[in-house]
Amino acid sequence: MSNHTYKKIEIVGSSETSSDNAVENALAKAAKSVKNMRWFEVTESRGLIGDNGKVSYWQVTVKIGFTMED
Amino acid sequence: MSNHTYKKIEIVGSSETSSDNAVENALAKAAKSVKNMRWFEVTESRGLIGDNGKVSYWQVTVKIGFTMED
Amino acid sequence: MSNHTYKKIEIVGSSETSSDNAVENALAKAAKSVKNMRWFEVTESRGLIGDNGKVSYWQVTVKIGFTMED
Amino acid sequence: MSNHTYKKIEIVGSSETSSDNAVENALAKAAKSVKNMRWFEVTESRGLIGDNGKVSYWQVTVKIGFTMED
Amino acid sequence: MSNHTYKKIEIVGSSETSSDNAVENALAKAAKSVKNMRWFEVTESRGLIGDNGKVSYWQVTVKIGFTMED
Amino acid sequence: MSNHTYKKIEIVGSSETSSDNAVENALAKAAKSVKNMRWFEVTESRGLIGDNGKVSYWQVTVKIGFTMED
Amino acid sequence: MSNHTYKKIEIVGSSETSSDNAVENALAKAAKSVKNMRWFEVTESRGLIGDNGKVSYWQVTVKIGFTMED
Amino acid sequence: MSNHTYKKIEIVGSSETSSDNAVENALAKAAKSVKNMRWFEVTESRGLIGDNGKVSYWQVTVKIGFTMED
Amino acid sequence: MSNHTYKKIEIVGSSETSSDNAVENALAKAAKSVKNMRWFEVTESRGLIGDNGKVSYWQVTVKIGFTMED
Amino acid sequence: MSNHTYKKIEIVGSSETSSDNAVENALAKAAKSVKNMRWFEVTESRGLIGDNGKVSYWQVTVKIGFTMED
Amino acid sequence: MSNHTYKKIEIVGSSETSSDNAVENALAKAAKSVKNMRWFEVTESRGLIGDNGKVSYWQVTVKIGFTMED
Amino acid sequence: MSNHTYKKIEIVGSSETSSDNAVENALAKAAKSVKNMRWFEVTESRGLIGDNGKVSYWQVTVKIGFTMED
Repeated sequence: MSNHTYKKIEIVGSSETSSDNAVENALAKAAKSVKNMRWFEVTESRGLIGDNGKVSYWQVTVKIGFTMED
Repeated sequence: MSNHTYKKIEIVGSSETSSDNAVENALAKAAKSVKNMRWFEVTESRGLIGDNGKVSYWQVTVKIGFTMED
Repeated sequence: MSNHTYKKIEIVGSSETSSDNAVENALAKAAKSVKNMRWFEVTESRGLIGDNGKVSYWQVTVKIGFTMED
Repeated sequence: MSNHTYKKIEIVGSSETSSDNAVENALAKAAKSVKNMRWFEVTESRGLIGDNGKVSYWQVTVKIGFTMED
Repeated sequence: MSNHTYKKIEIVGSSETSSDNAVENALAKAAKSVKNMRWFEVTESRGLIGDNGKVSYWQVTVKIGFTMED
Repeated sequence: MSNHTYKKIEIVGSSETSSDNAVENALAKAAKSVKNMRWFEVTESRGLIGDNGKVSYWQVTVKIGFTMED
Repeated sequence: MSNHTYKKIEIVGSSETSSDNAVENALAKAAKSVKNMRWFEVTESRGLIGDNGKVSYWQVTVKIGFTMED
Repeated sequence: MSNHTYKKIEIVGSSETSSDNAVENALAKAAKSVKNMRWFEVTESRGLIGDNGKVSYWQVTVKIGFTMED
Repeated sequence: MSNHTYKKIEIVGSSETSSDNAVENALAKAAKSVKNMRWFEVTESRGLIGDNGKVSYWQVTVKIGFTMED
Repeated sequence: MSNHTYKKIEIVGSSETSSDNAVENALAKAAKSVKNMRWFEVTESRGLIGDNGKVSYWQVTVKIGFTMED
Repeated sequence: MSNHTYKKIEIVGSSETSSDNAVENALAKAAKSVKNMRWFEVTESRGLIGDNGKVSYWQVTVKIGFTMED
Repeated sequence: MSNHTYKKIEIVGSSETSSDNAVENALAKAAKSVKNMRWFEVTESRGLIGDNGKVSYWQVTVKIGFTMED
């Protein structure tokens, strides 16, 4: 391993299913434009509530670190 | 949308099943006395450990925002 | 209940399955050397991303409180 | 002054005009159901952005302290 | 113990005597309108200073958790 | 609403006029390169002081959330 | 520019007009005893509420940085 | 009340007796050089431990706000 | 004094008497297994409430620093 | 100076030499794709430990502010 | 890599030379009783000042993560 | 040691050389007007970037504690 440098971006993923799935959706979307993603850090966990009083969307903010290429 | 005002209350839900389910239980209980809930923010995630050394209860604190009616 | 005293230790559990399971794995490992664990507090939630751009490991840091024996 | 006790509630006010006006709107709404409000603390300042890329609503979260009556 | 749900409220107690007594006064006042209080968390500790340069009132903010009844 | 994903960027706007105007300037500049901006969060509020001892520039840092397109 | 050193002081300004004006009042008062003020950072934003339920005073705490002279 | 301005200073008081007394000692010392002290905020609570394993000094850091005179 | 190294451990003490006494109980228990304790830092202050609505136990979390021996 | 607007990006630099050098490496890499960098803020300082128990890489996270061009 | 579990301990290293060296001294001391150290996180950076007004000791607190063995 | 009281002041030191040297410069400047300085705490670490994209000044904010004389 040489002197790696990483960039962190902040993405909010959402999911009707679970908070973990909101993270997975954030990564899936980010993967379309960013390569070499290495780790994520959850910085915020929240969600929207529907008219029925239940969770309609889990929303999780993650910082994603990826290797900056030379 | 007019000039909405929201109130936030802080609820601790618990669940034997999962941390997400603890959030859902918090919302279900709050829905009995509060209308027009719009969103939640997780502020604390913890749990109780049973004598078998395993999670006995997931406990998640959420702030719930709801529209204040006129 | 007498004047209990507790010690907190900080453990990072990991799991290929879910963030909740990472907590459970942290407790399971800690239980091998610590008795009388009472509660945990999640202090950090993050994870590793594989070459396929998906979560390879959920990593959750928990503080575990256990009763100090006399 | 006797041994006063205060309760704090958390309100999110909004305004199309300014962040200060969002605070004022939060107080105005709270005043309909709470008496003896004494002070506020801004805990969060944010807003919604319209399709024209400009602020459509300023949203400010305030904790409001009011005297608990005997 | 079933799937308990708790609500947290935030109270500022004051006392001419001590910071601990300010907490006790907060609980005493809250107990007049809330049942089943279980725990408190100190979130802020401050006070007023009199013209003689000494503490005139200790003011301690506590979050109080109580069981939400069915 | 489908499973939206958002990206947050962090911008520092400045203004000789007011702190709110500094936010508006941050949005105006960001709008030149980013579409579908939805909300902002103020994370820092500061300013420069001129030789006359008065505010010369209000500087407000905002995180701006915008929808990531498919 | 040589190796400048700065000192920060913490001032609470108040205003009946606006939160920005509270900052300006803090600077104006500080300028009477401190020279070479360079920047300020808002660390707290709050206010007093009058008997009419409206803001009577905006109170903003700022840290002010000024150059320490040789 | 006119447009008051306050300055905050940060003092660490110590006491062999109690944490509250450490606050009182901080105020007593500050009162020798500062007038018109109005309130204090506890920002840190700690202490030294003697060779006997007991508290030798309680050390409490307080921010003290006082009115800046014209 | 040579290049000392310290370790910090985190202990929750409890007391029916006072918050200061909860700190003292934490130190007393820790002293049974740790030598050369030098200082403590209070990181959390809370308590349990009895059925009578009063404090049943003060619970204070302290980090304790002690010299690591060679 | 006109109404400047800045963008902040978050970069993790690493170095086998020192924590300061990790900052310098972060800047050097960022400079390849960003112009007009003005300041940095250290938000996290950490590192990797080699099998010999010594620091193998210093890793420092910095936010870098740069002027957004018109 | 299997489902690794890590423990974090908190150590304060000191050095007459530099803040980085204080980190290295913390690791060197910890290495005497802990194996498989993987990373560290700086949580606090401070120091003692000698009678000559200069740094006599750099003191850096690090959390050290190490693999818990089976 | 009697019941010592300390005051903390906040200084920003700068250096073209290193972050540690910025701390040393802050102490050197403070020593010209303050006696009996005992310890410092780093609260912020940042810097200016020159036109060449490299660190032009390290800027470190320290709180300095000194004994208040009788």
